[in-house]
Amino acid sequence: MDNRSKQSMLDQAKQWVYDAGQLIRDMMEGPYQINTKKDHKDLVTEVDEATEQFLLNKIKTIYPDHQVMGEEGVGEDVESLEGTVWIIDPIDGTMNFVHQRRFFAISVGIYHEGIGEIGLIYDVMGDVMYEAARGQGAYKNRRRLQPLDQTKTLEDALIGLNNVWAMPNRRLKETTIHQLIAKAKGTRSYGSAALEFAFIAEGIIDAYVTMRLAPWDVAAGMILVNEVGGMTTQIDGSPLDLLQKNTVICANQAIHSELLTYIEPK
Amino acid sequence: MDNRSKQSMLDQAKQWVYDAGQLIRDMMEGPYQINTKKDHKDLVTEVDEATEQFLLNKIKTIYPDHQVMGEEGVGEDVESLEGTVWIIDPIDGTMNFVHQRRFFAISVGIYHEGIGEIGLIYDVMGDVMYEAARGQGAYKNRRRLQPLDQTKTLEDALIGLNNVWAMPNRRLKETTIHQLIAKAKGTRSYGSAALEFAFIAEGIIDAYVTMRLAPWDVAAGMILVNEVGGMTTQIDGSPLDLLQKNTVICANQAIHSELLTYIEPK
Repeated sequence: MDNRSKQSMLDQAKQWVYDAGQLIRDMMEGPYQINTKKDHKDLVTEVDEATEQFLLNKIKTIYPDHQVMGEEGVGEDVESLEGTVWIIDPIDGTMNFVHQRRFFAISVGIYHEGIGEIGLIYDVMGDVMYEAARGQGAYKNRRRLQPLDQTKTLEDALIGLNNVWAMPNRRLKETTIHQLIAKAKGTRSYGSAALEFAFIAEGIIDAYVTMRLAPWDVAAGMILVNEVGGMTTQIDGSPLDLLQKNTVICANQAIHSELLTYIEPK
Repeated sequence: MDNRSKQSMLDQAKQWVYDAGQLIRDMMEGPYQINTKKDHKDLVTEVDEATEQFLLNKIKTIYPDHQVMGEEGVGEDVESLEGTVWIIDPIDGTMNFVHQRRFFAISVGIYHEGIGEIGLIYDVMGDVMYEAARGQGAYKNRRRLQPLDQTKTLEDALIGLNNVWAMPNRRLKETTIHQLIAKAKGTRSYGSAALEFAFIAEGIIDAYVTMRLAPWDVAAGMILVNEVGGMTTQIDGSPLDLLQKNTVICANQAIHSELLTYIEPK
């Protein structure tokens, strides 16, 4: 993909994401009375699907030959990353959306022949747009994000890590996770994978470790973090496969190497 | 304390907290180059002390007979809660302040004869003021916060809980904490006690559990949460002692009762 068409696609996609954010905010003001679990579920389902459908329609109108993979399955059943593929999460951080009505994001990653070209993460209620195009840096609301400090090590790092990985679980040895928690400066948990990637790109946290993310949870975040010199792999150091769920370690190179030694699958 | 003097003191204190927030923001723009741990430490120390001194001077000018207890020890060595005592944390969430330059708060609780009368929590970078006066409700940026849903139970609750309490530690049986995590809807960790109390008052999270908080970490938050019908106790259900460090459980009444059964000291 040449730089000119990439820039044009980025501008186009960003406008659609802003519009999708407005759609979500409008729907949240709507007739829903969030009093029961059923109401919650109806709101999530309706907003998720409407937002994915909105983005799908926009993409297919301008780029009819692109594939669209989305959490809600409104798009195609994508079975290969050939050509150009948009990987979309209309609401990343569903529990935050329902429970907090903030701290959730729209996540859009655009891949061309399997290579991440464009990443957009939009904090809908905070009205903060994180954006990146491969080779052209990462931005937060048009301000360029600085490269990650590659000398920072685990003991100075805040790690995005949910409590579920520190207790007995069937994926990881929790004892080495306890050593990791003891070694790191601290841990945080925000409840949105896309925002945790964005926070790494911004330097708000320094790493993110989690065991089971779908392609749409990571597609944009990986591109954003790449552009500030961070890396994202599975917990054995291998690349992610964007056609299935993956384990994830994301950090600068030094911390990433350290993390690999603390994380042992069962 | 009568309502008229309480309202006047709240208005006065709130203006000082806004001014202290501006002082912090100004100092963050200052000559500090945050490149080393020493720089970090210098910035925290200087901003913490300057902010506490600023508030102390204001209080002592208008209320010379009030006592002031603060994290930085700029105020008196308070040994009793007789009379009126201001309990101040100039920067709650120090690690966030240093590392994230946001998600920290100024916390001011005012107690009269041991009873919490006024609570202020100011999210400095977000410019969000949480305020409460006993018997008069809690507010976020002048919008009244709704009473907590007292029917909500643990399985629908997001719990503020740091990872350190889910791993082996010398204060709590971690196995019952694991049961708690499994039972709850989810956990979050934001790194500022004052903001976690404010988030409970706002309904963003539903509970907060932690093992060791100083009086200035909780003084304002308890008052705020009280005003929406939440309760704050030590982990054995006993009241907090604001002259020493405490364990803390904060939630609505139903979740608080459930939490008591999951938390066992070692």
